Amino acid sequence: MSLTVVGSIAFDSVRTPFGERDRMLGGSAVHFALAAGFFTDVHVVGPVGDDFGKEHTELLHSRGIDTSDIERVAGGETFFWRGHYEHDLNVAHTDDTQLGVFAEFEPKLSAASAGADVLFLGNIQPDLQRRVREQCEGANFAGLDSMNLWIETARDSLLATIAEVDCVMLNDSEVRMLMAESNLARAARALMELGPSVVVAKRGEYGAALFTGDGFFALPGMPLEEVKDPTGAGDSFAGGFLGYLDGECEELSTENLRRAMAYGTVLASFNVEDFGTERVAALKRDEIAARYDELRSMTHLGE
Amino acid sequence: MSLTVVGSIAFDSVRTPFGERDRMLGGSAVHFALAAGFFTDVHVVGPVGDDFGKEHTELLHSRGIDTSDIERVAGGETFFWRGHYEHDLNVAHTDDTQLGVFAEFEPKLSAASAGADVLFLGNIQPDLQRRVREQCEGANFAGLDSMNLWIETARDSLLATIAEVDCVMLNDSEVRMLMAESNLARAARALMELGPSVVVAKRGEYGAALFTGDGFFALPGMPLEEVKDPTGAGDSFAGGFLGYLDGECEELSTENLRRAMAYGTVLASFNVEDFGTERVAALKRDEIAARYDELRSMTHLGE
Repeated sequence: MSLTVVGSIAFDSVRTPFGERDRMLGGSAVHFALAAGFFTDVHVVGPVGDDFGKEHTELLHSRGIDTSDIERVAGGETFFWRGHYEHDLNVAHTDDTQLGVFAEFEPKLSAASAGADVLFLGNIQPDLQRRVREQCEGANFAGLDSMNLWIETARDSLLATIAEVDCVMLNDSEVRMLMAESNLARAARALMELGPSVVVAKRGEYGAALFTGDGFFALPGMPLEEVKDPTGAGDSFAGGFLGYLDGECEELSTENLRRAMAYGTVLASFNVEDFGTERVAALKRDEIAARYDELRSMTHLGE
Repeated sequence: MSLTVVGSIAFDSVRTPFGERDRMLGGSAVHFALAAGFFTDVHVVGPVGDDFGKEHTELLHSRGIDTSDIERVAGGETFFWRGHYEHDLNVAHTDDTQLGVFAEFEPKLSAASAGADVLFLGNIQPDLQRRVREQCEGANFAGLDSMNLWIETARDSLLATIAEVDCVMLNDSEVRMLMAESNLARAARALMELGPSVVVAKRGEYGAALFTGDGFFALPGMPLEEVKDPTGAGDSFAGGFLGYLDGECEELSTENLRRAMAYGTVLASFNVEDFGTERVAALKRDEIAARYDELRSMTHLGE
């Protein structure tokens, strides 16, 4: 069992009604890996610049994450994102994006990364995602995230990439937008006709919905009273979901997919409790187990 | 066991991307009663005009609903609402409202209505709700719905009414607005400090969340591929929820409240499948049972 993730490795400057942080470690691959690292061996693929420090690598190593495919570009700058959230934390605004070393990124996977059983293509340009998918031939389960930008500017490439993966994990509004279908259940069915056997529609504080062949499952988000920064919640969800499937499941059964949804929900819920990676970086395995039990109890309808 | 509902009895003209209807039977009390009537004896309180026909009364009688407190105002016109929905059915627009006989409505409950065990105060002016609550002294469980209009224009009166009920059932955005608190869990706790022991936050297609003392429960909406008209979904939810509690439960246990949430979800899901009351009016008890089982299965996380 091992899992490879490609995605952004970033510095994020974030302001929410509950505070702000400047140039925190972030990015889809980082949030994903820190969550997935609780369950399985994770290889991170992506570029960084000279500004990426030893302390950042050490944080990843502390969770047992393999950073040997993190490519250091001499003279380059790490991807940078600045954004802020409204009082309603569901509303995010991007104030600045600096691609930095991502502008010229050409993924080259080592044998260890290319040999992973599970692959996650974080939210980057879909041509890049597809090139990683091609190099990671042995992966028997590949998941993908994307965003409205690629749906609008690179839809054909995104659809070509989607045809090569098993699982699409998008916000529910993105599922609708991608399939030009306002009904989520219909949009998810249409998306599965393109190839994937699993669609996860992320719904922010409302939780997430799972569509499979003829099945449906949904979980609410945890009813948190302290939410400070939603950045990276979707990637933490994906990390919990795929990390659990890779590290602790023998097969892709309905039961395992449902448990994976719960671990995704739990990891995302910790992510948003503090800024950037702060909460998940300090997280313990028994806290995950306790919150998983809490979530199961909160959603149990009984006989 | 019996249940009294006060609320609008209306004619609705509705347009959605899937069709339109002119002057359908509707209103909060009607949608509620048709749903609750599957579970218990329902008394409807509210005014209608000369335009309210025998066929409308007969529809209610066919579900065993007591209409003797439906007050016919000679020369008056029944409450009328005209609205339309966008392609995203979560977005509703009101195009016309004619209060008609509601403008002068003064609730007077018969002994049968006043003696009910459970009371539902549908979404009407909160002073009127409170006057009904006062007349229905024996009710051991009273629920209330409201809307942004009353939060904005009659907040003090609404808070006074809330202090007299056991259960508040609002859209989640209304819970936040009412308590001026963007975090739903905190807003629900604050609302319970005003008196109610139960808060149900309705979340449209995302389902509904239940807050009690120190408990939380949530269910997703049914993943329907056919949604034609969401008008009345919240009232159908409330009817399933309170109807089940009154008709089939001995006590207000956590388990019963959770099952009531599921019956609310099921009734709401049927409501939206066709225009106005069309689907619920044609509904059979075994369809409710089948969908309840489906919902339980769709939300079962397992061990």
